[in-house]
Amino acid sequence: MKNAVVLFSGGLDSTTVLYYALSKKYKCYCLLFNYRQKHRKELQSAIKIADLLKVEFEVINLNLPWSKDALTDKNKKIPEHKKIASFIPTTYVPGRNTLFLSFGLSYAECMSADVIFIGANALDFSGYPDCRPQFIDAYNNLVKSLGLKIKVMAPLIHKTKAQIIKLGTKLKVPYQLTWSCYKGLKEPCGKCDSCKLRLKGFKEAKLDDPAIKK
Amino acid sequence: MKNAVVLFSGGLDSTTVLYYALSKKYKCYCLLFNYRQKHRKELQSAIKIADLLKVEFEVINLNLPWSKDALTDKNKKIPEHKKIASFIPTTYVPGRNTLFLSFGLSYAECMSADVIFIGANALDFSGYPDCRPQFIDAYNNLVKSLGLKIKVMAPLIHKTKAQIIKLGTKLKVPYQLTWSCYKGLKEPCGKCDSCKLRLKGFKEAKLDDPAIKK
Repeated sequence: MKNAVVLFSGGLDSTTVLYYALSKKYKCYCLLFNYRQKHRKELQSAIKIADLLKVEFEVINLNLPWSKDALTDKNKKIPEHKKIASFIPTTYVPGRNTLFLSFGLSYAECMSADVIFIGANALDFSGYPDCRPQFIDAYNNLVKSLGLKIKVMAPLIHKTKAQIIKLGTKLKVPYQLTWSCYKGLKEPCGKCDSCKLRLKGFKEAKLDDPAIKK
Repeated sequence: MKNAVVLFSGGLDSTTVLYYALSKKYKCYCLLFNYRQKHRKELQSAIKIADLLKVEFEVINLNLPWSKDALTDKNKKIPEHKKIASFIPTTYVPGRNTLFLSFGLSYAECMSADVIFIGANALDFSGYPDCRPQFIDAYNNLVKSLGLKIKVMAPLIHKTKAQIIKLGTKLKVPYQLTWSCYKGLKEPCGKCDSCKLRLKGFKEAKLDDPAIKK
């Protein structure tokens, strides 16, 4: 049985990736990150799902005091864009996926994991530079430069949100337990980039989002 | 004036790099890391030197609970090798420089720094894969893949320890304030890889180490 580290936020994409990795028979070790994100209630989702699946997880506390992004800075509003991903939005946290992968790399090397799974996707996404295929490729080259055989895999990278949801539905992902909204309030706002992409995905997949109360 | 982030441990190499960066007229912002290293007294040195130079610094707390390396694991002894760097020693902390650079990258992007300075060197070194030129090159390619113009610079990478000490002596580095010993006891042990490389460097440079009491 091969080991995998899964970067796991409790959101739609990374939960789908976790179910995908399990379906491919990887023994999964999840890494969760508390980086003081406003929507850190996503970690409740992640822990609930990890417990449901009986997979091990570690929570990493991450403080980036210099970042003035809208996901962590209380003085900045979560934006509500009409057009998504036509520029880098204020919700971009500089270095975030680079750090997530680097913690994943350290974890993977220590436990002889073969793969680090990340839920990055570059079609229906917010326009973050650290979700693009060229970034994943460059990170894989970095890993190689260390003489390691670990591979970063981003199985959703070329999928639309609708395709991701269809894949996850086949894999029986409990989307009702996942959390996507950047605002982290009681209910999803339906207006932030993350909500909009999720709504669009379910609509295009012709499925109901079980996380939305009717 | 250009901004630079300096990965700064308070040891011989990174202190030399900090003085080098200042001599090149960079406004320096230091990043210090408490990763539960046994020799975290090096941080006292780093803070003393940063205060002396009146440069800003941030201390990052880093927990890698999975790592069983000899630098952080209380149950492992700091090794005393006869021959250094002929293999990867137990003091190697998987992912360490990748994480340090990734925090540096986040910091550099947020404050529009042009350079991240790192004291890595690959001649008189412990044999860590994340100190080699190919790793620094691969990290620079990773930064480029994000569309950033930040450059990782490792000005010591091809220098011997004696050359580093000669450079630092010219730059008036207060080596008496720096800390290198992995054991982190009251006085340097003189037997760990870090002490041995430092001793060899001062000997070859034909200089006295001002940190050693006679």
